[in-house]
Amino acid sequence: MKIGFFQFKPERGDVKHNAEKIYDSLIDKDFDLMVLPELANSGYLFANSEELESASENIPSGIFSQTLLELSKKKNAYIISGVCEKFIGEFFNSSVLYCPDGSYKIYRKLHLFDSEKQWFTAGNMPLEAYEIHLTKIGMMVCFDWIFPETARTLALRGAKIICHPSNLVMPYCQQAMFTRALENHVFTITANRIGSEKVNDTELFFTGESVIVSPRGEYLARASKDSEECIIVEINEEEAGDKNINPNNNLFIDRRMGFYEV
Amino acid sequence: MKIGFFQFKPERGDVKHNAEKIYDSLIDKDFDLMVLPELANSGYLFANSEELESASENIPSGIFSQTLLELSKKKNAYIISGVCEKFIGEFFNSSVLYCPDGSYKIYRKLHLFDSEKQWFTAGNMPLEAYEIHLTKIGMMVCFDWIFPETARTLALRGAKIICHPSNLVMPYCQQAMFTRALENHVFTITANRIGSEKVNDTELFFTGESVIVSPRGEYLARASKDSEECIIVEINEEEAGDKNINPNNNLFIDRRMGFYEV
Repeated sequence: MKIGFFQFKPERGDVKHNAEKIYDSLIDKDFDLMVLPELANSGYLFANSEELESASENIPSGIFSQTLLELSKKKNAYIISGVCEKFIGEFFNSSVLYCPDGSYKIYRKLHLFDSEKQWFTAGNMPLEAYEIHLTKIGMMVCFDWIFPETARTLALRGAKIICHPSNLVMPYCQQAMFTRALENHVFTITANRIGSEKVNDTELFFTGESVIVSPRGEYLARASKDSEECIIVEINEEEAGDKNINPNNNLFIDRRMGFYEV
Repeated sequence: MKIGFFQFKPERGDVKHNAEKIYDSLIDKDFDLMVLPELANSGYLFANSEELESASENIPSGIFSQTLLELSKKKNAYIISGVCEKFIGEFFNSSVLYCPDGSYKIYRKLHLFDSEKQWFTAGNMPLEAYEIHLTKIGMMVCFDWIFPETARTLALRGAKIICHPSNLVMPYCQQAMFTRALENHVFTITANRIGSEKVNDTELFFTGESVIVSPRGEYLARASKDSEECIIVEINEEEAGDKNINPNNNLFIDRRMGFYEV
């Protein structure tokens, strides 16, 4: 199975440009599953609620979702993107799985980072694993990574590939995804963005270095800090199915639930 | 506060030698908290149950525990060591906190690795945080690291410093302790051993590289792969008390418990 990420710089507030950019960049690529950064339709910062409103969209009727559904259909492949979602007067920092048959699944970021709490409602839907091809994927968004419970829950629910749209401003996550992959014996795809954004007194620099990690903690791909890059690797998704790490240890069965505090 | 590890090669089956080695190596060192490897009294492999029996001890009456309690008292400092523990006909892969006042606390490894299941009973006591000086420590042993729930539980129960006696045969853990420290905002001390052991057809090489990591994921110390080393660093243990990572995010308060699967 061919899995990848597209690391690029979404243009703040220019949804149409971002949708076209993604479409044009990926239409000739060969992949089964592609992951895009967080808030790839809108960019990350908002000067005011009008900007948030105009850069967000209803899923799947918005232009960004329609473009990615069309791309998914044409490529007969799955695409996961961070989307600034509008839903009945609320806004969510969401990740959407777009499927070739026109269907889609939404995950809404559970752990909002810093000033995101000003704009978005915290996620209100369960962490789920969805079947694609012959495997299952799970979605989490950016800062969700720091809570080990997020990836753990996805893995326990059957996700073999954790798809992770991100807008990282620190370099910790890329190094820590090693642990997330290893402890759950899953593949992880962290699609980060590049570039910077400035709104009023706030300027953010995004750290790139999107990574794909194998269930054994191998970095199968690592993008540069500041260049647009689409990297696709071929994996055997079955590797993530078996949680035995030797004849006597299974990462899930060996858990001592009664001793853990939640 | 001065915290450290003593990375060395325990001699298989020679409890008296190992106790004296530790005593002689640490008596002139300046520390408040010292962590030793897993099974530092016994070594790691056992050819048969007689070897296990003779290398194990009751806590605190055994010679190893008595030596470390004496060292703790003389140094007016806390010592944590992996101990092959005998207890009413059962054996445990334990970690013991030896205190200057002669008291002690026992943690028994919850997640046994590979052939350890042949010799040891899995841990049956809660993960607890214990007060030392003005902070709190928690204990976990070697393979416990791969289950994020272990360090998480210790941190949620108040541990600011996670002490981690180890006999690592792979290099994953040393790299992953970055994540354990960061996600819980705690200090971690992984005291690994060096050298190799061979019993019948089994030969194991231990990977050294003991590490101390700060709550921000900085490697404050990293020993070599194969040399005996005692490294002590001075920390401000208060750094681990505050789980806020910016004005809007707290690593514990932001958890979305209802969405996690245990």
